[in-house]
Amino acid sequence: MKVRIHVSLKPGVLDPQGRAVHHSLEGLGFTGVEDVRVGRLIELEVADGTSDETLDDMCRKLLANMVIENYRIEKLETA
Amino acid sequence: MKVRIHVSLKPGVLDPQGRAVHHSLEGLGFTGVEDVRVGRLIELEVADGTSDETLDDMCRKLLANMVIENYRIEKLETA
Repeated sequence: MKVRIHVSLKPGVLDPQGRAVHHSLEGLGFTGVEDVRVGRLIELEVADGTSDETLDDMCRKLLANMVIENYRIEKLETA
Repeated sequence: MKVRIHVSLKPGVLDPQGRAVHHSLEGLGFTGVEDVRVGRLIELEVADGTSDETLDDMCRKLLANMVIENYRIEKLETA
């Protein structure tokens, strides 16, 4: 089973990487960009029987920093 | 307009970060994980009239490294 985890910074948390990208886009001449936030995309190939609780557990224990980040679990296919 | 860019390593490109995460998941006792790939998730707030060509251009020039990475553009809303 393929699972995609979207990890993004919580609103209000300063994102220096996003600011750097924003600045670079403007430097390249792209106008109209108002905000940039950079997060992580983690693609997992897990056993078919893996429960939602287990996936949640993975996120909370390792994949996301719950103090400053949110995560969203997206299941792509059940083979 | 909110746009989400998914940047992931091309198949076959070695992913040391993914391997480290995979190893850590096993170390934490999670079984059944077969593969882990780590990519980036870039959320942009751009002007409503921004064309697909412009977004493509941003990805090719800055957001993704076309030699080793693929990108996918997802438009979330048109206010």
